[in-house]
Formats: sequence, structure tokens, C-alpha cells
Amino acid sequence: MNFTVTPWDVKGEVDYDRLIKEFGVEKINDEILTRIKKHTKDLHFMLRRKVFFAHRDLNWLLNEYEKGNKFYLYSGRAPSGNVHLGHLMPWLFTKWLQDQFDAELWFQFPDEEKFLFKQELTSEDTEKYLHENMLDVIAIGFDQKKTKFLVDTKHADLMYKEACKIAKKITFSMVKSSFGLNEQTNIGAIFYTSMQTVPAFLPSVIKNKNIPCLIPHAIDQDPHFRITRDILPKLGYYKPASIQCMFLPSLTGSSGKMSSSEESSALHTIDPPEVVAKKIRKYAFSGGQATVEEHRKKGGNPEIDISYQWLRMLFEPDDKKLEKIYYDYKSGKLLTGELKEILIEKINSFLKEHQRKRELAKKQIDKFIYKNNMMK
Amino acid sequence: MNFTVTPWDVKGEVDYDRLIKEFGVEKINDEILTRIKKHTKDLHFMLRRKVFFAHRDLNWLLNEYEKGNKFYLYSGRAPSGNVHLGHLMPWLFTKWLQDQFDAELWFQFPDEEKFLFKQELTSEDTEKYLHENMLDVIAIGFDQKKTKFLVDTKHADLMYKEACKIAKKITFSMVKSSFGLNEQTNIGAIFYTSMQTVPAFLPSVIKNKNIPCLIPHAIDQDPHFRITRDILPKLGYYKPASIQCMFLPSLTGSSGKMSSSEESSALHTIDPPEVVAKKIRKYAFSGGQATVEEHRKKGGNPEIDISYQWLRMLFEPDDKKLEKIYYDYKSGKLLTGELKEILIEKINSFLKEHQRKRELAKKQIDKFIYKNNMMK
Repeated sequence: MNFTVTPWDVKGEVDYDRLIKEFGVEKINDEILTRIKKHTKDLHFMLRRKVFFAHRDLNWLLNEYEKGNKFYLYSGRAPSGNVHLGHLMPWLFTKWLQDQFDAELWFQFPDEEKFLFKQELTSEDTEKYLHENMLDVIAIGFDQKKTKFLVDTKHADLMYKEACKIAKKITFSMVKSSFGLNEQTNIGAIFYTSMQTVPAFLPSVIKNKNIPCLIPHAIDQDPHFRITRDILPKLGYYKPASIQCMFLPSLTGSSGKMSSSEESSALHTIDPPEVVAKKIRKYAFSGGQATVEEHRKKGGNPEIDISYQWLRMLFEPDDKKLEKIYYDYKSGKLLTGELKEILIEKINSFLKEHQRKRELAKKQIDKFIYKNNMMK
Repeated sequence: MNFTVTPWDVKGEVDYDRLIKEFGVEKINDEILTRIKKHTKDLHFMLRRKVFFAHRDLNWLLNEYEKGNKFYLYSGRAPSGNVHLGHLMPWLFTKWLQDQFDAELWFQFPDEEKFLFKQELTSEDTEKYLHENMLDVIAIGFDQKKTKFLVDTKHADLMYKEACKIAKKITFSMVKSSFGLNEQTNIGAIFYTSMQTVPAFLPSVIKNKNIPCLIPHAIDQDPHFRITRDILPKLGYYKPASIQCMFLPSLTGSSGKMSSSEESSALHTIDPPEVVAKKIRKYAFSGGQATVEEHRKKGGNPEIDISYQWLRMLFEPDDKKLEKIYYDYKSGKLLTGELKEILIEKINSFLKEHQRKRELAKKQIDKFIYKNNMMK
């Protein structure tokens, strides 16, 4: 195959229909959307536009919900750098789910993951990014009363024992094939997936009852949760349901997903307006024609235009406005430069508010961190 | 080779001289004993008799000690069953070291280890044995003010992060060869050795200065600490020094080490006097002759007689008394039955006191458990 999708590597032109088959997830179809809409009145634009395109066991989750058996949400962020716009997609959607379903959210910060998988990343850098990343998550606007942060190394007194129960049921050959590890992989990285499984049942352990769980995530994390779903029933817990989104494409339109390691590929939540404007003007891959004359005549191609795609996937929730942009661009009425300015304005107005909330978040971190009252 | 010694498997007739070469430890010789004696006045009988027969870096440790750089001790117990007499050997010696060198002791209870390595062992059983085993360790008489218990799952908020730093430097192929693991081994068992390394430097982390460490242990644990010694200098910590003892032989004299899984092989610290007497009379392998007449004429062989060996290794600290038993048995003056009664009396008088202290220990557990004041 000409693309790779694992939790640690996304490369090539991702064929999402093929991923649906290979990973064994279900496609989000109109039937399930109608069912969700019964509970939410409106559908989030990421659902309407199938940015969240696949799921596992959403019907079961809604059956339970309709019986009065409420679910909680599980999301996460492995600190290793600054948050970029691609990271926001599942979190913004998760906030919508929290609001619509009045759901508790357990948000994991696996602060050992990237440390174990990236040779050059130090424990000190991870600590710094952990703090920075928490600010971004809080700035999303999650309900503090219903949101609990779990930090793997700090909550290991709760999590490690549970992770060992999971680990006992996973052999090296199982993770080797799922994650592309080998005999030269370090033993922390080999163990890691056990820790990523824990939030999918920890609230059930703590509250001593089986609680359904829904995990909204980008599709590359699915290999972890396939293992989670295999094992949890053996320990007497529900399989978590999940809902998967596509990757926000890189600014340059190159294949793979947005990545902080390429300067031209990503915009970060802490970028000032002039950097946003400059990067988009300079790097955003255009679906337009080579000259203004040609563009007016032949029109642009929104399908491959990154500015349009970012509006569609993340920054323009209004379907009518998006549709107008689509047709104006396609007809040649809207030039690439003009389209870029629309996006710049959208992003900068989003980031202005995000950065304001991010400042306020500095005083709120402690409230979000889960306090565990277990005996020491 | 016709014997196996790994942390999880000891089989066959152990050739300790060969182990010294294969593991690369140094033999305990009279020179190092003289040096120790300078600080302790007397030598513990397990040193005089070379029950502790090998070491790593004891000279370095004593250099540091003589410069005023005190060391701490690290010992441990993986809960999986009741404590048997073989377990006591390194602990009793460790207590002597604590008293002689006024040393802090960090005692690890890796309550995930046996859970991960023994398919049938449950988390609940481990919890029960953890409690029981702590009573035995406290009954040894360690100084409460200078002894800290670390329980892997309960102190994981301190230990897991440090274990990940170790794990990052160990590949699967390294543990595979050291411990005889394979692709069907579970990923918790693969990760485990990282946790066993942590107490060898955790006090240095907590106190924020490099503190020498001495690990008294049975020789089968050496593969863990070889890895520990490879890695700690890379993180800026001292290699721990270590001192290794032989295995207390099984009651039946069969090869390998004393094991709780064989009913006839082990005596436990909670055994009542009549069980001790019965088991020794019934099972203790004898170096005597087939009939009293023959024994009087030819004499017995103390080298293979388990009662004699247990007295030598664990229950008769007095060299003169032991020597008399040796020659009386060898000459035929002492019969096997009489030798067994000497051992029974010794063990039962030891256990009477141990069981009394074990009862008192029930109220002391909490004081021994390390209290970590880190921010949550």
C-alpha cells in the first residue's frame, strides 16, 4: 500500500475508505447521523461533513444512553511539542459531545509516550510541553466540573496497576504486528499501549460500576483501541465505543498529516497573527491557476486547495458560507489570495480568543487535575 | 550447562564457581573480609562461611564509605506466596549490614512482578501476600526510622517515571537474552526489570544527590542488576554495589532452590512447631548411613546433609558449636535423628520469636511505608 497509518507514523496519501476496511471500523452513514441528531437537535459540522467519518459501536453506545446508562468521553494528548491546529479537531468535537450529552471527560496526558518513542526528547522538555499543552486543552472550554486530567507519570499510582492487568494479556508478538515494533524497540515503548488502555476503564474501577466509554480520536490511534477492545471484556468491562476523524492536511498539502516537525507544515495555537498570515500566504497549497486570467477563466479546485479544506474541516461551521466559497472559488470568481485572506481572518479570530482563554487557563490547571483519594 | 539460574527459574545442581565466571561477579575473598571487618569488628557468620560468596564493587563502596560517603541498602520481596526460610537469609544479613553501617534500607515490594510472570496468580492474591510478606520483613527487626518500604503499584507515581528513563535504554533483545523471554512473553513482564532498577537510584532522585547503594541479594537476581549497572552511569548515577548469597537448599536436598510450590521442599515462617518437626523428620535429606550400626562405624556426610547445611547457612551462628556438630556427625557419634532434633529446636525457637514479632508488626506496617510528599 502507498500509505502508512500507525500511532507513530502517518505517511503518504491516506485512503480513508481503505482504512475503514483494513482497520475494521464502520463508516459514519446517514442512519447513524439521524440517530445522533435525535439527541442533539443539530449535528456538529464535522459530523455533517464526515470529517468524523468512522466509528465503532456507536449504536450500542446510543442504546445504552437511551436506556439511561450515560457514557463518559476519553480523549488525550501526548506532550512532545506545541499544539498545532490539527490537534484541535478532535478536542473541539469532544467539547461538543460533552455539552450535548452532559458527559464526563477523562483527558489523558501520556507524558511518557513521546519520551519513550523519540530518542532526542528529554524528560524535562516533556514536562514543559505537558504544562503548555494543558493550557490548550483547558482553552477549548471543557466543563471543569466534568473534566478530569490524568497524567500518566503523576497518576501512575492509580494507573500502573491497572495497566499491568492489561499488559498481562498482551504478548510482544501482538504489539509487534499492530504497531510495527521490533526487537530493537525499547521495553518502555513496548509496554506503553497498556497505559493508553487504562482511561478506557479506570472510571469504572474508581466508581466500581461498569460505565460506557466513547473515544473520539484521529484514526491513527485506532491500533491502541483495537487492543483495548479485545482485552476489556476479558476483565469484565465494556468495550469502549469510538469515533474517528481524518487528519487535518499539512499546510503545504503534502501527504501525511500536519506535523510540528516541519516548519512549513503546521500552524500552532501560540502563533501570533502575523506568523499565521505569513505562513498561509507563503505555504498554503493552492488549488488555483497559475495566473489571475487563467483562474478567472478555468476556476480553482477546492478539493485540493488547503485553505478551502481547512475552512471545511475546522474553521467555517456555516454550511451556506462554505458553499458560497466553494462555488466562488470553483467558478474563478474568488482568487487564491482572497481565499487565503478569508482563512487568515478566521484563524486569527479563533486564535485571539483561544490565546485569551489560554492565559486564563494558567490559573485553572490544578482544578482540572484528577485528585485521587486512595490511601498511600 | 546442567543448571539454570535466572530471576524466575533456578534448576539443577548450581555450580557457584561457574556462576562467578558467567555472571562476572567477584569472589568474596579474605582480603575483602578483612576490609569489612575493620568497620564491623565481627564478621557475620554468612560472610565467614562464604554463604555470601560474591560481590560487585564492594571495594569502591568501602572507599566511598571511608571518605564519609555513606551508602544505603536496597533489598526486596516480590509477593506471590508465604515467606519461606530461604527468603530470610539475605534479609537477616541485610539487617546486620543496616546495624553495622547505620544504613538506610529501601525495601521494594514489586507487587506486579509475580502477577505478570505467573499466569494463575491474581491481583487479589498478590495484595494478600503483600500484606503477609510485609509482616515477615518487619519481624526481621529492621530499624523503622531508617527503613522505607516501596510498593511498586502504590508508589508508581514516584517510580514509573524513573522506570521509563531506564526502559528507554533497554531494548527487547537485551532483556530477551538476559532473562530468557520470547515473543510470547507479555509486555508487562518485558517492561518489569525497569521497575526493579528504580530503588537503586530513587533515593538519589528524592534527595537530589548521588548516594552509593549496596544490594544484598540471592545470586539469581543478578541479571536485573547487571542491566541496572549498565544503565545508571548513563543517567549520571553510581553503579550500585552488590553482594550475592547462595540458595538455601530445598529440604529434600533436591537440586534448585527452596520453593514454596513444592510442599516437601520448604518451611514457612508461619509454620507451627509441630509442622516444622514433622516435615524435617520426614523430608530432610540425610547424609547419614542406612542403619545406626553402619552410621556409628562409617559416620555421616555433613556436606550433603540438609539439616547440617541449614545450621551452617542460617541457624547456628556459633562456629564452635557448628564445628562440634560437624565432627560428631562425620565421626558417627551424632545420628541423623539427633541432628534433625537440633535443627528442629533451632528453627522452632527462631520461629517462636519471629511469629511473635510478626504479630506486633501488624500495627507497624503503615510506619514502614514510604510517604511521598510530592505534589499531586
